[in-house]
Order: sequence, then C-alpha cells, then structure tokens
Amino acid sequence: MMANHSHGTVEGPDDGGASGGRADRILLAHGDGGLLTANLVEEVFLPYLGGQQSEKLLDAAVIQPKGCGRLALTTDSFVVKPVFFPGGDIGSLAVHGTVNDLAAVGARPVAITAGFILEEGLDLDTLVAVVRSMGQAAATAGVRVVAGDTKVVERDAADQLFINTTGLGEVLPQADLAFAHIAPGDRVLVTGTVGDHGVAVVSRRRGLAFDTPVRSDSAPLFDLVAPVLEEVPGVKFLRDPTRGGLATTLKEIALSAGVEIVIDEERIPVNDAVRGACDILGLDPLYLANEGKMLLVVAPEAVAPTLQRLRRHPLGATAAEIGVVQAWAGKGELWLRTPLGGTKRLDRLAGEQLPRIC
Amino acid sequence: MMANHSHGTVEGPDDGGASGGRADRILLAHGDGGLLTANLVEEVFLPYLGGQQSEKLLDAAVIQPKGCGRLALTTDSFVVKPVFFPGGDIGSLAVHGTVNDLAAVGARPVAITAGFILEEGLDLDTLVAVVRSMGQAAATAGVRVVAGDTKVVERDAADQLFINTTGLGEVLPQADLAFAHIAPGDRVLVTGTVGDHGVAVVSRRRGLAFDTPVRSDSAPLFDLVAPVLEEVPGVKFLRDPTRGGLATTLKEIALSAGVEIVIDEERIPVNDAVRGACDILGLDPLYLANEGKMLLVVAPEAVAPTLQRLRRHPLGATAAEIGVVQAWAGKGELWLRTPLGGTKRLDRLAGEQLPRIC
Repeated sequence: MMANHSHGTVEGPDDGGASGGRADRILLAHGDGGLLTANLVEEVFLPYLGGQQSEKLLDAAVIQPKGCGRLALTTDSFVVKPVFFPGGDIGSLAVHGTVNDLAAVGARPVAITAGFILEEGLDLDTLVAVVRSMGQAAATAGVRVVAGDTKVVERDAADQLFINTTGLGEVLPQADLAFAHIAPGDRVLVTGTVGDHGVAVVSRRRGLAFDTPVRSDSAPLFDLVAPVLEEVPGVKFLRDPTRGGLATTLKEIALSAGVEIVIDEERIPVNDAVRGACDILGLDPLYLANEGKMLLVVAPEAVAPTLQRLRRHPLGATAAEIGVVQAWAGKGELWLRTPLGGTKRLDRLAGEQLPRIC
Repeated sequence: MMANHSHGTVEGPDDGGASGGRADRILLAHGDGGLLTANLVEEVFLPYLGGQQSEKLLDAAVIQPKGCGRLALTTDSFVVKPVFFPGGDIGSLAVHGTVNDLAAVGARPVAITAGFILEEGLDLDTLVAVVRSMGQAAATAGVRVVAGDTKVVERDAADQLFINTTGLGEVLPQADLAFAHIAPGDRVLVTGTVGDHGVAVVSRRRGLAFDTPVRSDSAPLFDLVAPVLEEVPGVKFLRDPTRGGLATTLKEIALSAGVEIVIDEERIPVNDAVRGACDILGLDPLYLANEGKMLLVVAPEAVAPTLQRLRRHPLGATAAEIGVVQAWAGKGELWLRTPLGGTKRLDRLAGEQLPRIC
C-alpha cells in the first residue's frame, strides 16, 4: 500500500531517530530546505502530486490559462520563531517570501492569498500587529491580498500563528529563465550580503544582543530585478537563497542545470556583524537563510550591465559577481575557492542548522 | 499603535476568556466559521488587508490579469482532527475544499498549490497516505498540483500536519454570480443532504460507532454545478456550506445580499443516520460542516431545470428546493419554518460547536 515509502529511500541523518540511515518519521531537518527537504519532495510529493506529467514540483510554477500570458503561481508557509525579529515579522516575511518566489521566475506580483492558522489563546494584539505589517508589506510590494482564510486550533496544537501565502504573478515577456539555459562560462551574481536574516532570527530567538544588531534583510525584490530582466540580454536564471542559504541554493542549481559551480569566498558579501555573530554562534553564513537577496546566473557579457542596474537600487547596492559556471564533471559539484587558494566542496545543508527560520 | 484593536470591537462569547463580552485573545470560536470568524475578518483582516479598495475579503476572489479571462483565486488551510475519518482524510479534504470554493464562483479548477506544515515526529506513512489521497483527489477533480512547500516545526508546535491549498480557476463565461443579483422571490436549493461531514469527523474523533456509520460527503463539485451554470439562465448565487453549516451560510447570504431568507425544515435533506447521531451528540445538522454540498439561489423559473440537471449527477441525486428569498425587512434575517407550522429565527453559529472540523 505504501510501496514508495516501504522502499525506504527517504534518508535520515544518523542522529535523527532513523534506523539504518532511513527515517520513518519526520525530522526537523526535513524542513530546513536542504538535502532531506529535497528527498521528501522527490520521494513523497512528486510521485503522488507531480503525477503523470512527472514534472518538477517547483517553488513557482508557470502556467498559461486559455488566452492569458504566462502566469506564475507559488506557495509558502511561514512558521518563523519568534514571530517578531529585528527587521521584520512573520507578516512582512510572508509577503516578501512569496513575492520573491514570483520575482525569481520573472513575475510581477498581482495577487496574494493569506491563510492563517492561529493557536487558541493567541494575543489579539499580536495578530493585529502581524496583519498590519502584512498589509504594509503588500502595499509596498504593489500586490493585493485578495482572499484569506482563518483556522483556530486548540492551545498547544500550534505555536502562536502560522501563515500561508500563495502568490499569483504575471511573468515579464522578456523573462526567459530556465535551468537549461545555464552554460559553462556563465557567471553567478548575488544582489547583496548573505546571512542577515538567519542571524537576525536566531539572535532574537536566543536572546542575544550584539554590539551591532543584525537586522533581517526581508524585502520585496521584484523592483530590483525587473530592470535587469527587461533590459539586459543573457540573464539565464534567478533564485532567492532562502532556507538552506546561498550554498544549498547554488548546489541545487548545479544539480538541476547539469553543471558545476565555483564560487569565491572572498567575493561573497557578508556584513561584518553577521560574520562576527556567525563566529560566536558557530554558524556558516553560506548556509543561512536570506529573505531579501537574489542569485542570478548570467552570460559573461551580461555581468557589467546587470551589476550596474542592480546597484542603482538600494537593495542592490552591494551586488557582486561571486562565481562561475563550469562544465558538468559528473556530479553537479559546488566548489568554494578559499582566500588561501584552496578549494572546498560544498553540499546541500544536511541536518537542521536552524529550524523555523522562515 | 493598535487603534483598531484597542477600540475593542471584536466580540467574544461570555464563556470564552473574554472580559465584558470582548475578546483580547483568540478563541476556538474565532475559527468555527460563524459570528466570531466574521468579526475577525471585518475587524482585523479587512482593515489592514482589504486596503484602499475596501473590498470584501472573499473566500474566492475573481481577478482578471491583462489579456486573461476571469480567473478565480481561493485559499484554505486544513487542520481537521483526526487526520483520517470515514469518507476522507485531510489530503482529499484539502483538494475538495479548495476546488469547491472555486466552483462556488463558477470556476473550473486549473491549478492548486499545497503547503504542508508537519510536526517533527510525524509518521512518514501518515504523510505518504495523505499525499497519495491528495493526488488521487486532484486527479479526480481534474486539477494539477503545480507548486508546493513544506515546513517542519518541533514536536508539540503543531498537531501532526496542517495543509494549505490555494486554487486557481477559470470562471465559466456563463457564470454571472453576485449577491446583488439575489432578489425577493428567488428560491434556495441545496444539492443534497446536510451534516454528513460534521458527524463523520466528530464520531471518529470521539470514538463513537453507530449502527449505520456516517461518511463524510467530501467531494469535488465543479462537474455537478457546471451544467447548471452553462445551461440554466437565472442562477444568481452559489456557496458551499462548509464551516458553520447551512444555517450560517444562508444567514451570511441574507446579510450580504440585503434580503431575508425563509427555509422549510421538512424540505432540508438530512440522512437518517446523521439525524440519529445528531440527537445522540446534541448537534444541529443545520450548523454542521458539509464538504460536498452546494447551496444555490436561483430565479423561480430556474428551479425545475436546475434540479433536473443536478439530479442527473450522482452527487446531486437528493437535490432539493428548501426555501425562498424575501424582501429585506431591516435585519437580513434567516427564518426556519418548522413542521408544526412555527417559525424560528436562525443566527450564525456563535461559540464553537466543533473545532477543527476541516
């Protein structure tokens, strides 16, 4: 009856209640956006939901109803803890996360829906503050919240509140983004510093105060990337490095595009405060979630005009070229060139680094 | 800072941790689809999310991106307990609930998204069974799951699993449904028996076994209502009576359309087993959730052709005319004519009857 699962291909880390490397229960790491999340998608969701089309269950799907241009549809649930953190809250994050998934397929956000799951006893002031923040974030992002739903569960059946946002967007006619376009020689760009969101949330969660407080980078990115898509030929692929961080996202791109990627550690922008906090907390900024950054893969001749346009926008002021695409050598590897000239293999996040980061 | 809330207009029932009839915390009843849910929408969600347009935050919004026909977008989160119940499970329910909200605005389902929130430790077999059921329900309903998301929260931060489904549909060109079309003299029809879903879930939850087990009516309704919309002139309004049941749904329609509605108790189809279970459990079938039924408001001359088409479909075999619309008398009342000739005022569900019914 459960053939897929009984073949036991969902791998668990050794320490996670798994027997023989195999998980028969959901682990926190299944939600961290890394290797186990990918396994869950490939081995549970795709077989039953991807269905006959054997399509990839993407974060944002591009569909084309009769008579329409290309539309993008994307969904995300938000369970971030704590609900309020420096630079944002679960409400603004829910808007930004979803409009950024639309931006990653080149889509202008048109409408979002909001589904709330509330814990009995939730302070109404908390809900009001979150909903108001959500409304402000939607207005700033130029998107309307068109439909909603609220469920309430008993005390201790949820932790305060969870929000699902689903976004509908119109794909820019100029956007032509696909894994298949990525080719050796292409360059990897990032629109700014990495790790800020992860550090902001975990610092607040653990009650840590740093001399220079780190704020989440949570922000809507369509206006940042639209001029690039509209004006620069040779833009091949976009993705926002959220859960799992820059490293996991680039490793997934390498695997899906059938290429290798080499990034330069020195060229990856990281705020000093984030670097300091990571040292103290034992975290790696390359694996921390970002909520206001985009990775771009572009043809070599597109690097200069892309950086120029990105840097015109406040959210792209520290945009940088950080790596290069190389030919597939059999494994879709992601390599990190260190300042001392060494080269280190990077894999997807494996085992939870930080649960409930978004 | 929280002006809206501090004006204190969100009403709570006397017994629900509220002070002076006012709730400053979320109560289970805020999620039951009745009066408190409506208050929450009107006093928290609409002010901040309905925004400048001061539009009603509907279950299904109709939007029209550039160049497209009318599209419908709807969202629902599912928290039903238990996860498996006679006649369905949280996976099939999540598909049916969302495609039925689309059907209620006359929209053929095109695509749905699925957002999962999983509790750490959830049995993987449970997840696989739910996802498989979801895939089967989607295939039956003729809709594709195009995007997904999974989050995992710590043990006891959620109860097993919650699912959000958001649906995109194409509105039938013939569909012309609006509160404003409803007029005195119009008739109220229901596509079949009421109360089945509520009784099925609560029986399983409480471990009750009846001689005749009650199964949920959970089913996709577009194919049932499409021929009516395509072929019968004079169909004014559709809504699926889920949370809050038939009574709450009709009361909302009366209020929103600015009319009064009178329904005949004897004409409302209720399965004998549901009636018996309601007697034992102290429940009113008119306030129990349905997940495979539609209410229709139609012009008098549309009654016969509508019933004829509904009854052709297995899900409409017991379709019935149950009431009539009357002129607004100041309060948007819903009246129940009892078998003995009396008349009883019905209000929206107030205070939780059954939490986590869907």
